[in-house]
Amino acid sequence: MPRSKEKVSARLQQAALDLYQERGYDLTTAAEIAARAGVTERTFFRHFADKREVLFGGEAPLTALLTQAVREAPAELGPLESLFHAFRSAVPMLTENRAVSAPRRRVIANTPQLQERELAKVRSLTSALTEALQTRGVSPLKAKLAAQVAMAATSCAFAAWIDEGSDDLDVQLCKAFHEVRDLCVFATEAPQAK
Amino acid sequence: MPRSKEKVSARLQQAALDLYQERGYDLTTAAEIAARAGVTERTFFRHFADKREVLFGGEAPLTALLTQAVREAPAELGPLESLFHAFRSAVPMLTENRAVSAPRRRVIANTPQLQERELAKVRSLTSALTEALQTRGVSPLKAKLAAQVAMAATSCAFAAWIDEGSDDLDVQLCKAFHEVRDLCVFATEAPQAK
Repeated sequence: MPRSKEKVSARLQQAALDLYQERGYDLTTAAEIAARAGVTERTFFRHFADKREVLFGGEAPLTALLTQAVREAPAELGPLESLFHAFRSAVPMLTENRAVSAPRRRVIANTPQLQERELAKVRSLTSALTEALQTRGVSPLKAKLAAQVAMAATSCAFAAWIDEGSDDLDVQLCKAFHEVRDLCVFATEAPQAK
Repeated sequence: MPRSKEKVSARLQQAALDLYQERGYDLTTAAEIAARAGVTERTFFRHFADKREVLFGGEAPLTALLTQAVREAPAELGPLESLFHAFRSAVPMLTENRAVSAPRRRVIANTPQLQERELAKVRSLTSALTEALQTRGVSPLKAKLAAQVAMAATSCAFAAWIDEGSDDLDVQLCKAFHEVRDLCVFATEAPQAK
């Protein structure tokens, strides 16, 4: 995307976030978001399909960065390690967006329609990561499980980073992936099929 | 729920499933589901809040069974093992409903509005399991991660059981939890915080 188009997108996102916080999602129209951002409604719809999508513009570059990092991760890394490596490589991008992430999470938490879209986006990112792992020769079942486990760890890390105001996302990611690894050390005998 | 009320619920669920498959979710009304089940529309709404909810009636007893199994799991089981134990204890209930589960999954896969409700139900079950683990003294972060990891494993097991027509859900559960455990054995050095 050319830099000027990116700037307009960012302005629209900020305007939407402000209006959703001021009057709520339901009472805000795309036209009002456009007006607040100083562009026409038509321009709004050139950037975003609807007033839900305006909060999810960061997903495409994040998905691209993560899937590339998985595909290019060192060959000796296992599936979950490749994902851990990928999420760590996204820390600079996520840190750059941190100022927007906190109010965005609050707006989404208060708006069921946005929660549904958020869940759909999480699912779509999980699928993209599953496919990226398969290009490394990981079996479909293992890839799907690894992607879901990594998303769970990352989502816990992200929540701690934003909601608890922790300083460093990388530290939170390491903590969450550590916890996952500890969880999987079964204390008693290994699960056995009958 | 008294047995007669359960029977009406089951009839309504079967009628909804049949109609959603015949004409699609959008073109089916609550009144038509009630008529097909041989009851009034008012009876429909005494059983279910809306025509989405009619496909999710099995969630409450499943959640009750699983959370009780987690709370009462042997004290020596770790968080993920308690959940593994709980899901294995739900195999008879899930097997009893298998004839309904396959068409239900197809209908949900074809209906975005039902997918959203399904995602919300999964999230709600995950929260209930997280809370049940916390009553065992598991920390909030570990409980949340364990619940999400177990849900991922179970969902893969369930998909294989239904979609691939595998015979035994317990075998699939053991396979998926085994895979998760293997994933968490990091091949190279453990992740370290900076």
